[in-house]
Amino acid sequence: MLENKKNHDEKVEMGGSLREMPKVGKTRLESDSLGSLEIEENAYYGIQSRRAKENFPLSGQRIHRKLIRGMGFVKYACIEANLRTGSISKEIGEAIKKACKEFISGQYDDQIIVESIQGGAGTSINMNVNEVIANRALEILGKEKGRYDIISPNTHVNMAQSTNDVVPTAFKIAVLMMKENLINSLEELHKALQEKEREFDGIVAVGRTHLQDAIPIRLGQEFGAYARLVGRDVKRIAESMECLCSVNLGATAVGTGLNADPAYIKAAIEELRKISGMDVQLAEHLVDATQNTDCYVHLSSAIRICALNISKMCNDLRLLSSGPICGFMEIKLPPVQPGSSIMPGKVNPVMAEMMNQVCFQIQGNDHAIAMASEAGQFQLNVMAPVIFKNMFEAIEILTNGANVFTNRCIRGIEANTKQCFNQVNKSLGVITALNPHIGYEKSSEIAKEALETKRSVRELVLEKGILTDEELDMILQPQKMTEPGIAGMKRVSNS
Amino acid sequence: MLENKKNHDEKVEMGGSLREMPKVGKTRLESDSLGSLEIEENAYYGIQSRRAKENFPLSGQRIHRKLIRGMGFVKYACIEANLRTGSISKEIGEAIKKACKEFISGQYDDQIIVESIQGGAGTSINMNVNEVIANRALEILGKEKGRYDIISPNTHVNMAQSTNDVVPTAFKIAVLMMKENLINSLEELHKALQEKEREFDGIVAVGRTHLQDAIPIRLGQEFGAYARLVGRDVKRIAESMECLCSVNLGATAVGTGLNADPAYIKAAIEELRKISGMDVQLAEHLVDATQNTDCYVHLSSAIRICALNISKMCNDLRLLSSGPICGFMEIKLPPVQPGSSIMPGKVNPVMAEMMNQVCFQIQGNDHAIAMASEAGQFQLNVMAPVIFKNMFEAIEILTNGANVFTNRCIRGIEANTKQCFNQVNKSLGVITALNPHIGYEKSSEIAKEALETKRSVRELVLEKGILTDEELDMILQPQKMTEPGIAGMKRVSNS
Amino acid sequence: MLENKKNHDEKVEMGGSLREMPKVGKTRLESDSLGSLEIEENAYYGIQSRRAKENFPLSGQRIHRKLIRGMGFVKYACIEANLRTGSISKEIGEAIKKACKEFISGQYDDQIIVESIQGGAGTSINMNVNEVIANRALEILGKEKGRYDIISPNTHVNMAQSTNDVVPTAFKIAVLMMKENLINSLEELHKALQEKEREFDGIVAVGRTHLQDAIPIRLGQEFGAYARLVGRDVKRIAESMECLCSVNLGATAVGTGLNADPAYIKAAIEELRKISGMDVQLAEHLVDATQNTDCYVHLSSAIRICALNISKMCNDLRLLSSGPICGFMEIKLPPVQPGSSIMPGKVNPVMAEMMNQVCFQIQGNDHAIAMASEAGQFQLNVMAPVIFKNMFEAIEILTNGANVFTNRCIRGIEANTKQCFNQVNKSLGVITALNPHIGYEKSSEIAKEALETKRSVRELVLEKGILTDEELDMILQPQKMTEPGIAGMKRVSNS
Amino acid sequence: MLENKKNHDEKVEMGGSLREMPKVGKTRLESDSLGSLEIEENAYYGIQSRRAKENFPLSGQRIHRKLIRGMGFVKYACIEANLRTGSISKEIGEAIKKACKEFISGQYDDQIIVESIQGGAGTSINMNVNEVIANRALEILGKEKGRYDIISPNTHVNMAQSTNDVVPTAFKIAVLMMKENLINSLEELHKALQEKEREFDGIVAVGRTHLQDAIPIRLGQEFGAYARLVGRDVKRIAESMECLCSVNLGATAVGTGLNADPAYIKAAIEELRKISGMDVQLAEHLVDATQNTDCYVHLSSAIRICALNISKMCNDLRLLSSGPICGFMEIKLPPVQPGSSIMPGKVNPVMAEMMNQVCFQIQGNDHAIAMASEAGQFQLNVMAPVIFKNMFEAIEILTNGANVFTNRCIRGIEANTKQCFNQVNKSLGVITALNPHIGYEKSSEIAKEALETKRSVRELVLEKGILTDEELDMILQPQKMTEPGIAGMKRVSNS
Repeated sequence: MLENKKNHDEKVEMGGSLREMPKVGKTRLESDSLGSLEIEENAYYGIQSRRAKENFPLSGQRIHRKLIRGMGFVKYACIEANLRTGSISKEIGEAIKKACKEFISGQYDDQIIVESIQGGAGTSINMNVNEVIANRALEILGKEKGRYDIISPNTHVNMAQSTNDVVPTAFKIAVLMMKENLINSLEELHKALQEKEREFDGIVAVGRTHLQDAIPIRLGQEFGAYARLVGRDVKRIAESMECLCSVNLGATAVGTGLNADPAYIKAAIEELRKISGMDVQLAEHLVDATQNTDCYVHLSSAIRICALNISKMCNDLRLLSSGPICGFMEIKLPPVQPGSSIMPGKVNPVMAEMMNQVCFQIQGNDHAIAMASEAGQFQLNVMAPVIFKNMFEAIEILTNGANVFTNRCIRGIEANTKQCFNQVNKSLGVITALNPHIGYEKSSEIAKEALETKRSVRELVLEKGILTDEELDMILQPQKMTEPGIAGMKRVSNS
Repeated sequence: MLENKKNHDEKVEMGGSLREMPKVGKTRLESDSLGSLEIEENAYYGIQSRRAKENFPLSGQRIHRKLIRGMGFVKYACIEANLRTGSISKEIGEAIKKACKEFISGQYDDQIIVESIQGGAGTSINMNVNEVIANRALEILGKEKGRYDIISPNTHVNMAQSTNDVVPTAFKIAVLMMKENLINSLEELHKALQEKEREFDGIVAVGRTHLQDAIPIRLGQEFGAYARLVGRDVKRIAESMECLCSVNLGATAVGTGLNADPAYIKAAIEELRKISGMDVQLAEHLVDATQNTDCYVHLSSAIRICALNISKMCNDLRLLSSGPICGFMEIKLPPVQPGSSIMPGKVNPVMAEMMNQVCFQIQGNDHAIAMASEAGQFQLNVMAPVIFKNMFEAIEILTNGANVFTNRCIRGIEANTKQCFNQVNKSLGVITALNPHIGYEKSSEIAKEALETKRSVRELVLEKGILTDEELDMILQPQKMTEPGIAGMKRVSNS
Repeated sequence: MLENKKNHDEKVEMGGSLREMPKVGKTRLESDSLGSLEIEENAYYGIQSRRAKENFPLSGQRIHRKLIRGMGFVKYACIEANLRTGSISKEIGEAIKKACKEFISGQYDDQIIVESIQGGAGTSINMNVNEVIANRALEILGKEKGRYDIISPNTHVNMAQSTNDVVPTAFKIAVLMMKENLINSLEELHKALQEKEREFDGIVAVGRTHLQDAIPIRLGQEFGAYARLVGRDVKRIAESMECLCSVNLGATAVGTGLNADPAYIKAAIEELRKISGMDVQLAEHLVDATQNTDCYVHLSSAIRICALNISKMCNDLRLLSSGPICGFMEIKLPPVQPGSSIMPGKVNPVMAEMMNQVCFQIQGNDHAIAMASEAGQFQLNVMAPVIFKNMFEAIEILTNGANVFTNRCIRGIEANTKQCFNQVNKSLGVITALNPHIGYEKSSEIAKEALETKRSVRELVLEKGILTDEELDMILQPQKMTEPGIAGMKRVSNS
Repeated sequence: MLENKKNHDEKVEMGGSLREMPKVGKTRLESDSLGSLEIEENAYYGIQSRRAKENFPLSGQRIHRKLIRGMGFVKYACIEANLRTGSISKEIGEAIKKACKEFISGQYDDQIIVESIQGGAGTSINMNVNEVIANRALEILGKEKGRYDIISPNTHVNMAQSTNDVVPTAFKIAVLMMKENLINSLEELHKALQEKEREFDGIVAVGRTHLQDAIPIRLGQEFGAYARLVGRDVKRIAESMECLCSVNLGATAVGTGLNADPAYIKAAIEELRKISGMDVQLAEHLVDATQNTDCYVHLSSAIRICALNISKMCNDLRLLSSGPICGFMEIKLPPVQPGSSIMPGKVNPVMAEMMNQVCFQIQGNDHAIAMASEAGQFQLNVMAPVIFKNMFEAIEILTNGANVFTNRCIRGIEANTKQCFNQVNKSLGVITALNPHIGYEKSSEIAKEALETKRSVRELVLEKGILTDEELDMILQPQKMTEPGIAGMKRVSNS
């Protein structure tokens, strides 16, 4: 490849010192308004891509594949629209269209050489794509690469377009393409939790508040709460993605639509829907849609809430499975790898730990997105590239993380029924059920005595002659305590 | 009042050294499961409130008034429900009910002495309210305060309740009570921006991307973009508050509803709807509703997005009004106070600056809420108090800030029409309209020359014989450039 | 008035204690460059304070007392300097000086009516102070309040000063005044942890990684780790406060020092050191010191790290004390209040929970500070007020929180020696000590078998004839395992 | 390599569905305590690496090269120490040592297949390295890969080590290796700013506070303030890295040092210093050093402060260079690429925009690090991998970003001297210099009149007979106003 691995490594090694990429073999000379540069003869990218590559050598992380594909869709839709409105000659237009099709297939992905974080609100992404398509179209016409006087990346490929409408539209398409996997992945998690809700419904365990023993709860109820939580996340994320369907293609530079004929805009949106398969529509107010990124923060917020929720659940699961001998041991997570390089036999809750870290990463992603969104100025948010980068990462690690987490952790969770049962029987939480019968104050005294003397609540109540064996039988039923109602059904002694 | 100001100041002075509050005059002795304490004889609060006051002396910030009122509603609803189900004697129940009514009116607000940040997930809030109501009810019955053997804060006032269902329910009621003001305040901002959109619709100004002169835009379009942004915020916030209507009253300690009879729960919800006027319903899954705080983060996210958006707009407004002589000077914000203690005549955009700070504060509030939400464990999120505190502040400063900002800034903005006009005429952005006619590359050359020679685009194009006067008349119309379309309607020379 | 009264009342409802100042009785008319306003005759504040009060009615939170005092010190130092350099007449100067002294004593604190969040980078704070001092000085001279032609808040009280040097200097003084309490509070926490380190040194407990049983550790070591952590926090915070000693008094409006004579600057700094008792010096580069707020973020970072650390420790303490029957139960936190309104006898780790929330609040404070710091522009960071507000809160709640936490939680922690002992004996972690003698792989097999069969490691090793009783005696000593070394001192079988 | 690109792409395509990697060609069977897996015959990694690869398929981002090298150093140091203490046979030890040397050279980097975010606190990193070294050592001995009965990744390569001491130590080494580049990069930025400070020292410009024209300042002073800011950042970052020199090698699993003989620990640290060239020492308290990550947050804080500072500076630079015709136009940033795909001739401040985004990214990185740090529990912070990932990214993009930013932006900044001069002359800020002579109130009146009538301050003062021509000559010297002092040296009329 043009960008050899060693070269990149060296850059990292050197802490980013500004190195011109080596130009081996033959080159062609390209020019733009700032001057000229030698470009590798076989490269499809051109002078502006090269400049951008050298201007932003941050970490070597390239543009997300989905965004590249989204750009391909948009370029295709635009050239079709320009053909339909007769704005471009058929010969040039068809060559560009063919190049776009190839581009969409992914075969020029390695020609998109600019990094994900870049100055310029995506101009370098757009120009990299424009140059690659222009050069491939030239090739199709049997012309030499770089002959922008015949097919220009700007005048022709970018006709009636601006970075400011093309790139956000491509980004929205990209995220919409990731939607199904994300929703499916979370929906599978949701279902797996529901299955556990059913499976564990009969198991009564110690409820805990403040990490202190509280009243009984069914393990199934615990998983039911997780399931509903994730269920809401699916809904929130899906809803927050709706605004992505509103695109500003045709808004051009500042949202006013200069150089984009209304007929072209209509056609471009139609073609975009067709080629991408996404149900996008033209935004109502193009100036608004061009400069504001609230839609992204809205989506990012939904994702981060989901991450916070999953993190909370993972914290619980790790605690519930703490042990194997000196912890809570109420559930057992499936072992997926040995847990220690030094401690034999140790197995750790690594899948849950991974999800906690995914959560923290996503909080960081969201934070970067929020700050970048606030930094928009006037008719454009030039910080869009860092938003894209963080959004892609957030979606990807949540999708993939939830997927393996569901399959390798949730589905395999086993309840330690015996431990749950023993704990409920030992715990004092059941005393709460005595309140309606003997009052909180008297119950407190008994609780205190029980804890100090290590005697059971029942024993003490009987000994003190407060309630009878029959009454206690009615009241002290942990399983019954897990649904609304006064244990014992009616008050033994009205307070 | 019992808490004198001086005392509080001293505490702060001393960096929070643990001081017992002075007990002046007569006292009564109260006891709980941990021991006894002297309480001021005339105090309505009791031993647990006092303990909490001493345990959490952080900054002197008390419980938000709206939360106190929400607690009053909940306590009233619960005692009514207990009366209706016959769980409490009529005499005691009616005394408590009367005390609740008085409590709701606000006359015991100064008896709620616990701070807003506190350990215990709100137990101290709940017990403070329980004690005040119990003591007032005792008084109503002609009994001495502190006679909890007759009316107990726990057994009677808190009957069939737990902090874990009562406090979140009261919090949701509290926020719902704040909803109207918040929505109204933002809606007014929205409308004021729409008015400016109309008012400024005829003014063409320099559009800007990357802080660099771009193509023309109408000032009205700029305000239209702000209006739509805030419009979406109103919608987002209103929608995110819907989940607050789902409450867990009756869930008691861990969400299972132990000690809460279904008939009682039904009655309590009914009474709560009646007394509060809020359209609350019982949550579907009480264990879920008791432990999960995603609903709060969802609301907080909507608020923070709004804050980010307003901050972006304020940044723009401050830039557009920069000057009065050496800045952009495209708009004039109404002066509301002298801007400098040293620079005579200086006036600053203080209302916008205030909103920027409100935004940053809200980002901080949101951050605290998110971290606290993630920290929930098992059947409860014990970090709820810090969530409450930050949510109240966020809503309050956004409501009040948007209100004054609309009235004292937005409504009074004036356009500097002359400056806008002059700038558009000077700027080179109009050259973009030549692209479809002469191509991007040629346009670039002219742009470069125009900037270097300080000659106009028109002059250069004419001189070079590229287009005629008539053609240029058709193409170079800034006003027309602010809507979609090829300037000049059809391409002069097809590319 | 722009703000109608009803609206205000609603705001008061909302807990923001936003009080219109009553204009009862007589008033005086004051004017500034924007017009005139009636001011209560007995008020010491004037027209600009009043404007600011009405411009920023956010939540009713006023300026921190320490900042008011800091302003008093600065004003005193400046008037002294102006007297020393002969820039002000003796009569006026001495009256102002007397007023400053009174002001420092706190008797006009209630005249500082502006809110903590405000547009204008503190101009309203400065002018509020200037007006109060001017009016008091007029009174001292036997003149009527409001006679700014005799003593002007700007020309005289603010002589050679700008908000931009005066307010940051006062803020730094304010924080330095809070330093001792903060450091003492954390140092006490540090010491209390060290005491526990010593007290628990002999108690061997189960070490845990990944919440899974690991190898033995002494409880004292666990507290030793906490102690060192807090020890570093004390150091970090103290160091991060050093830069506060560098002040920009004399920098005036943009840091260039216009209107501030070098002799005056020298004198003002000297006087400030004297009156405040703080070791402040003039910053090296005044333009830098006037616009940059990195020093604040540096301090805030040190505080937030401390908060993160304490939060981690509190999480551990809450886990270690989980129970009382169904948890880890290795330590017991002192009970400080009943834990539940419904569950009799329940006691919760409320002091630790409070500290967790203090941590989250501080993360939020820090976040707001960071965003505000980034938003500085050119020669000033106009977002300073929101930085001040959040810094004061962070310092105050950390100081006060750590104080009660140390006294009411850490100092009273008891070890559950028996539980620790039992757990170590039951756990399988000791098997790690066999690695150097029999290899990791064989140890793993035994660990697995032990867990499945619930037999002891020792029993299995003996049964398999891998090691002898004597060898195992040497190797399996939990206490010895808590220090570096190969258990058994030399390898039984070299691998 | 073994992981072909296509396969990875498919995974991403599929949203992370759980796919076993295809095993083509011959395989060997490996086993661990959880069972057996087929491993590609030519792979150096083994079963545990493979499990981890499949457990954490998040985004394809691998372990940072520097961490891999750090691990190599540590493994080398440990095997040397084990050889020196005679804990391992010479034959096996020497083979491992040779393998370590090769490993350090980078030739097995592609065998480190685990992702950067992973559950297990780095166990998978450690085991991946252990397996690669073990298999290579086996090969060196002429044995088949996978013969862990001869050389075990755990018993031999990981002898006397735990993930919990080895991985953090390697991470610290890795960061220390990146230190020089980071510091150099920032130091170059610092110097470049100092050069501009000198270069622009004679240029008087309009100072701005609140984005409003204020008093004059020299452009050099503005860059001087930036220079000092970055200078402090260099110092803060360097200082915050000092704690990285304190490593916990020898602490093993929970920090107690079980299985690590004191002689071994001493030797390992010595060897590590030698091989890595880093001045590391053994931490004082190994339990503390093993579980606490405050050191990382400290470093991350220093980096984020730097990023906030650079972002503020970039915001200023973008504003100062706004234009080219309708903005501030006081400086000109060097053009590095065409700025628009549609607007001919447009050039944007892309280098500064890139740095803003680097800043936002780093805030996100820091946020993830802070949350992960708080999530540590007991003797370990299992969230370490996500900390590593974010720290590496933050350091790398700051290093590389600052580098290109310095070379391609700062060094080429030109002042627009004429514009600066014109603006100062037009602005009203100079009126501040009249305060000491005629009082703030009179100055305000003149300022107001000047702004309204567009007449000059001088003209008005003369016309009103307030000061003479000579006096005004003395007072109204913008250049003199840029240093402390009363303009005109002594007060014309004492107030």
